[in-house]
Amino acid sequence: MSEVRVITINQSVFAQNDRSAEIIRKNLTEQGTLFLNFMSSPGSGKTTTLVALINRLKGRLNIGEMDVDIESSLDAQRVADLTGVRSLQIHNGGLCHIDADMTARALVEYDTKGLDLLILENIGNLVCPAEFDTGAHKNVTILSVPEGDDKPLKYPLMYQVSDVVLINKIDTLDYFDFNPEKAKSSILALNPNAVFFPISAKTGEGLDAVCDWILAEVDTIKSGIL
Amino acid sequence: MSEVRVITINQSVFAQNDRSAEIIRKNLTEQGTLFLNFMSSPGSGKTTTLVALINRLKGRLNIGEMDVDIESSLDAQRVADLTGVRSLQIHNGGLCHIDADMTARALVEYDTKGLDLLILENIGNLVCPAEFDTGAHKNVTILSVPEGDDKPLKYPLMYQVSDVVLINKIDTLDYFDFNPEKAKSSILALNPNAVFFPISAKTGEGLDAVCDWILAEVDTIKSGIL
Repeated sequence: MSEVRVITINQSVFAQNDRSAEIIRKNLTEQGTLFLNFMSSPGSGKTTTLVALINRLKGRLNIGEMDVDIESSLDAQRVADLTGVRSLQIHNGGLCHIDADMTARALVEYDTKGLDLLILENIGNLVCPAEFDTGAHKNVTILSVPEGDDKPLKYPLMYQVSDVVLINKIDTLDYFDFNPEKAKSSILALNPNAVFFPISAKTGEGLDAVCDWILAEVDTIKSGIL
Repeated sequence: MSEVRVITINQSVFAQNDRSAEIIRKNLTEQGTLFLNFMSSPGSGKTTTLVALINRLKGRLNIGEMDVDIESSLDAQRVADLTGVRSLQIHNGGLCHIDADMTARALVEYDTKGLDLLILENIGNLVCPAEFDTGAHKNVTILSVPEGDDKPLKYPLMYQVSDVVLINKIDTLDYFDFNPEKAKSSILALNPNAVFFPISAKTGEGLDAVCDWILAEVDTIKSGIL
């Protein structure tokens, strides 16, 4: 095996994005809205997980949801239909990510005042979304069992920027060669502060613990309001 | 649910890429090398599938392999170790795709003369790789059962540009709500010429039919040499 490096990145675009993201985060903190950014591969169960979490939390929190997709409105419609919360479909014109300026434009459309929790379902992709701070308070990444426990090694930036990792589809652990401890240790090597929740969005296993974490984070944001 | 469009794309970058891709394709055609570009989500089984296909074909074809990854060299090393063919790891500096110019730079490192078949394992991503013609003769996309049969609706461009779709992990059909006919009809609506192979790279089911298709495509390329 041999190796070749074919490109280097211009860092300035990320620095500018980081500044825009800080403004979003500051504004949402001041109004007491927790902003969570959910990321993952396509097909890892983001929408199913979000529907299940929102339905568990909507009696206790005022929740809003935004969904990024290239073309379709399937996910935002599904969230709206299955949870009743207000959802906004963001079409990003075929790009593989949403950045802070795009998020800011979406927030002009979606009045977030009075929300306790704003959820962004990012585009299904382990590369680009990791590079752009959206202004969220916390990044939540879903790693599903069928994808394999080597994903953190292959997409390290995604796991470096993830505060929380939901290991989803644990009801299928018997059918795949997925070692949760191996996945966790690879992620902790990239990000020693990562928090893990094993879940099955399909069966509901483990979701209560994720809700408890979200409720605690909402309390943290609100306790900072003077 | 409401909707907002936050960006439009500049098409000229794709037009320039298309011209570079045509040069690569023409050169490989003239030397009788079939160039296949394998794309999919992360964790759909690209490397496992390629190892299985290469081991079935290496007695009949002279094969080369190139692997794009952001950081690691895991996949190229795995292909080299498990098949014995010459593999090149392409590091693309964190980008979500490889374009034709990057492919051309990799081809300077990887002398393709005498190869019957050159395989590119693209980065695991359903968005960016679909946008950039790499110069391959055929695009092969892997859709794995655990990802769900709605992926063609959510990532339509990937399926528009795919000549062949391998429906992988069919050994797990009993455990997931995946309707192969629904997936096929969604893909055919986007691309009426798409060809399908149901496979399990793990058990080997269906791989002989894929090998037959590859052998026929190699014959087609070589029959064009004067």
